[in-house]
Amino acid sequence: MPFNIACGTCRNCVAGWTSFCLRTNPTEGVDGAAYGYAQMGPYDGGQAEFLRVPFADFNLLALPSGAEWERDFAMLSDIFPTGYHGAELAGVGPGDTVAVFGAGPVGLLATHSSYLRGAARVFVADYQPDRLTLAERFGAIPVNIADGDPAEQIRDATGGLGADRGIEAVGYQAHDPAGQEHPEMVLDGLVNAVRATGGIGVVGVYVPQDPKAATDGAKEGRIGFDFGTLFQKGQRVGTGQCPVKRYNAALRDLIIAGQATPSLLVSHELPLAQAPDAYDKFDKRADVYTKVLLHP
Amino acid sequence: MPFNIACGTCRNCVAGWTSFCLRTNPTEGVDGAAYGYAQMGPYDGGQAEFLRVPFADFNLLALPSGAEWERDFAMLSDIFPTGYHGAELAGVGPGDTVAVFGAGPVGLLATHSSYLRGAARVFVADYQPDRLTLAERFGAIPVNIADGDPAEQIRDATGGLGADRGIEAVGYQAHDPAGQEHPEMVLDGLVNAVRATGGIGVVGVYVPQDPKAATDGAKEGRIGFDFGTLFQKGQRVGTGQCPVKRYNAALRDLIIAGQATPSLLVSHELPLAQAPDAYDKFDKRADVYTKVLLHP
Amino acid sequence: MPFNIACGTCRNCVAGWTSFCLRTNPTEGVDGAAYGYAQMGPYDGGQAEFLRVPFADFNLLALPSGAEWERDFAMLSDIFPTGYHGAELAGVGPGDTVAVFGAGPVGLLATHSSYLRGAARVFVADYQPDRLTLAERFGAIPVNIADGDPAEQIRDATGGLGADRGIEAVGYQAHDPAGQEHPEMVLDGLVNAVRATGGIGVVGVYVPQDPKAATDGAKEGRIGFDFGTLFQKGQRVGTGQCPVKRYNAALRDLIIAGQATPSLLVSHELPLAQAPDAYDKFDKRADVYTKVLLHP
Amino acid sequence: MPFNIACGTCRNCVAGWTSFCLRTNPTEGVDGAAYGYAQMGPYDGGQAEFLRVPFADFNLLALPSGAEWERDFAMLSDIFPTGYHGAELAGVGPGDTVAVFGAGPVGLLATHSSYLRGAARVFVADYQPDRLTLAERFGAIPVNIADGDPAEQIRDATGGLGADRGIEAVGYQAHDPAGQEHPEMVLDGLVNAVRATGGIGVVGVYVPQDPKAATDGAKEGRIGFDFGTLFQKGQRVGTGQCPVKRYNAALRDLIIAGQATPSLLVSHELPLAQAPDAYDKFDKRADVYTKVLLHP
Repeated sequence: MPFNIACGTCRNCVAGWTSFCLRTNPTEGVDGAAYGYAQMGPYDGGQAEFLRVPFADFNLLALPSGAEWERDFAMLSDIFPTGYHGAELAGVGPGDTVAVFGAGPVGLLATHSSYLRGAARVFVADYQPDRLTLAERFGAIPVNIADGDPAEQIRDATGGLGADRGIEAVGYQAHDPAGQEHPEMVLDGLVNAVRATGGIGVVGVYVPQDPKAATDGAKEGRIGFDFGTLFQKGQRVGTGQCPVKRYNAALRDLIIAGQATPSLLVSHELPLAQAPDAYDKFDKRADVYTKVLLHP
Repeated sequence: MPFNIACGTCRNCVAGWTSFCLRTNPTEGVDGAAYGYAQMGPYDGGQAEFLRVPFADFNLLALPSGAEWERDFAMLSDIFPTGYHGAELAGVGPGDTVAVFGAGPVGLLATHSSYLRGAARVFVADYQPDRLTLAERFGAIPVNIADGDPAEQIRDATGGLGADRGIEAVGYQAHDPAGQEHPEMVLDGLVNAVRATGGIGVVGVYVPQDPKAATDGAKEGRIGFDFGTLFQKGQRVGTGQCPVKRYNAALRDLIIAGQATPSLLVSHELPLAQAPDAYDKFDKRADVYTKVLLHP
Repeated sequence: MPFNIACGTCRNCVAGWTSFCLRTNPTEGVDGAAYGYAQMGPYDGGQAEFLRVPFADFNLLALPSGAEWERDFAMLSDIFPTGYHGAELAGVGPGDTVAVFGAGPVGLLATHSSYLRGAARVFVADYQPDRLTLAERFGAIPVNIADGDPAEQIRDATGGLGADRGIEAVGYQAHDPAGQEHPEMVLDGLVNAVRATGGIGVVGVYVPQDPKAATDGAKEGRIGFDFGTLFQKGQRVGTGQCPVKRYNAALRDLIIAGQATPSLLVSHELPLAQAPDAYDKFDKRADVYTKVLLHP
Repeated sequence: MPFNIACGTCRNCVAGWTSFCLRTNPTEGVDGAAYGYAQMGPYDGGQAEFLRVPFADFNLLALPSGAEWERDFAMLSDIFPTGYHGAELAGVGPGDTVAVFGAGPVGLLATHSSYLRGAARVFVADYQPDRLTLAERFGAIPVNIADGDPAEQIRDATGGLGADRGIEAVGYQAHDPAGQEHPEMVLDGLVNAVRATGGIGVVGVYVPQDPKAATDGAKEGRIGFDFGTLFQKGQRVGTGQCPVKRYNAALRDLIIAGQATPSLLVSHELPLAQAPDAYDKFDKRADVYTKVLLHP
């Protein structure tokens, strides 16, 4: 089941943009609804024993019976399609070299998706050694930010040209190894890591308002990144929340066929009752909590 | 003849990105060359009696003999394809509602191009009455910025939804009616005028460095526009200089068939010797100098 | 309302292929349902006083109140989107030269649609002078089959190169001016009229079985056209019934904006009770019955 | 080096259709040139010690020095891009189920290419056990024609739905296991094996004229396949010789990155002098001559 709640008949749903359904979210000025997500409608979160699903005939995805791929299928509700959406927005295609910024779950599945779409090489930039190790399990070439400017490392590894495509899997709360937030840091890195004419897919989150953001601009959604260089390089940028339904059937079929195994990133499986404790550990990055599967 | 100078055999040229030729510009870190353009290689400007054309077999466009469409064909070297590129980057297609910011020559031909691609309605925002009147001659619905926030005017005229596509035909030197520059003003306007899932094409110029820019950020290419709302709306942005060769044969054929008449915007025709004076008047916006054709 | 009956939630509907809905047609081996159409499900025809619409929330199209564009809107249920689908399948884009075979209602609106998509020139081949005259009202260049091989006429008019795109708006019951049917005649004409690398959209009807077809092959759906030349020219062919919902909102907006006026082809407006008589006259091509609007 | 000879500056070359160059082939009515190929210009064949390459700056592909991937790179001149072109024409994308007809070298590399583009499952139909075994090495699910109608086998394996995409890698000289030629056999099989709305890529050869063809129609390029069912299913067909240059750089990068290994199908490596004998054995299918590499 997608994390988006979509009606299936409005203009955006019909066009495949279920993440921007015009009907299911009563919030003024915001299109698209989701379970338990700020500003995205009056729906409780999806990590629950039972769930009421609006427009279920449209939103649910048929799965084969049995438990064989259950752990992989769990990734279909959000994180696997979101990583894939990053690759789609960036325009990743056969033979491409890709730069992914962020080796969290979305970045790892953006890597996985890029290879499924025929990428030749995927670089993944992060500074957490355990995440970079996991990225290597997905076939990525790790780029440790602690070793120097990741854009420079990627340009050096591509004969100075840069990557063909870039994926933003961090968001405006990006911080440097010292813990200092820099809202424009990842976009700057991508503009510099990607070659002229390349595409950038942004699935890391940016918001119109956040009183706690690191800069005065970012508090009002303003991200002062290097748009001048982006224009000079003729790059394209695609953004936004993933329309899960557009991709989940194809990704399901890839799982069943044995081509995709997103569950590689699952680090823990716990009963639902332990969710609060797991969230706490995930936040603190304790015990290598990469991704947790909760069993209701 | 395109304003771009392209080799025809490098990776970018072969892919149709002649504006980012990897061979013709020796400037470190900049892809793409042009006649008489800062940072784009050691080539003199194209407004001359004679011109030396590198890789002429690749760059020249065949035209029918005679002078019948000469004034229209003159627009094929730069401004008509550039306006068209804006529509292409924005993804303008049949039935779309389009918001063009800027009613200078590029904005007017972005309007013309949008209609050629099947747009239903094109709004053009500016504050110069003479430019808006000319926009109406191209079929546009004028939006006078002096009458209030153009994004709000466009949303009001589209039942609150906003335009499907937006085109930036101004650049970072955008200023308000009082003459004050605001580098992020036009991008902000487009983010707010275009609906969720929409596309934005940026052909107004942004640069990595300009010591005279209006803000500290813009001096280093940083444009602090509302990226948070752009992400929330899932918009896409395409940018950069136009690969003229990709479009000029089709636009030529549309001129010959009588479907396109870009010369509608020509206000003056002068001998080459009067060019310096004409530039001066154009800069001061004297005598309604919209677009000048120079006869060598 | 589209002539297709679509569920809105099956795999094909979600992908925009409402003409191949997997749920609404119980006929073994045939995907897609329609009102009053052989093999397309147990639904009565749509030319009626009242109509029961399955999955109405998905299938109906919202129109503005009032009668201003009523005659144009009537074309949205079938014939205008079908003509447009021909242009889409052929890949018609800005600057293209298009060859349409057949100047019946579908061919005329394929012409109209091609211009809406930016075609430079549209040739329309037929042998009925009244239809060719009507084609000229839609801006077409008429090609009278009675004057000689239409493909040769079109190649001559394009410097020997041929058209960029071709649209089949006749079907396997094509006949020559003498009334003799030739099931492969129109496809042959298009293969020869369209240049190498071009696209062909087929919206004229072909069927798997028809005991009354003109050749033994055609009785079993076999059309022995010149596939060898098609392959040598690297042409592409798209076929099939139109998914009306994919296009009707955009076409509606073009009507409202005054860009599209499909009702130009309406020759008669009659009360529903006179439908049988009108069908009879249409079949006999009496009194220039091009297209009849029935008022319930 | 591609097998196509392309000028790089004509309309088709600029559009990426180097297989239909308008300049290099003087043969009346045929666009596109090749080395040693009937009707494709006065050029000797490419299996030679030395080769004169027209427009070499445009046609040659840069390779890394050394011999590491030499056997794979040899596939880049023709057969690997041709297989890939079949997948492109069919529209193969992530999650698709693909039906390839023909397990010769082109069919095998169409299989390889389909997986590189993200296919979930690829069925390969043939009746030669050794070829089907090789297909399995490329990850294909073998379909033995000797066991019954391949279309029916594929529909049965896909819950009755059929494949999403089909690739024709045989041509009009297709014959049944008894050796009898049936020019329409493979197209019929694909029309029946592929589901409604699916795409079919034809890279097996069809020609406008062949006095030795198996049917009177085929002697003049006419292939009487089931176009009626193709139309009823709304399928699309792309055809023609591969524009090698469009794909070979990406495929080279996939080889270098270790994602693609087309040389898996090479059965023999021989000195150039033994070519005549090898061709003879290949024709007779002796000693499992799948694909031979000749060393000049």
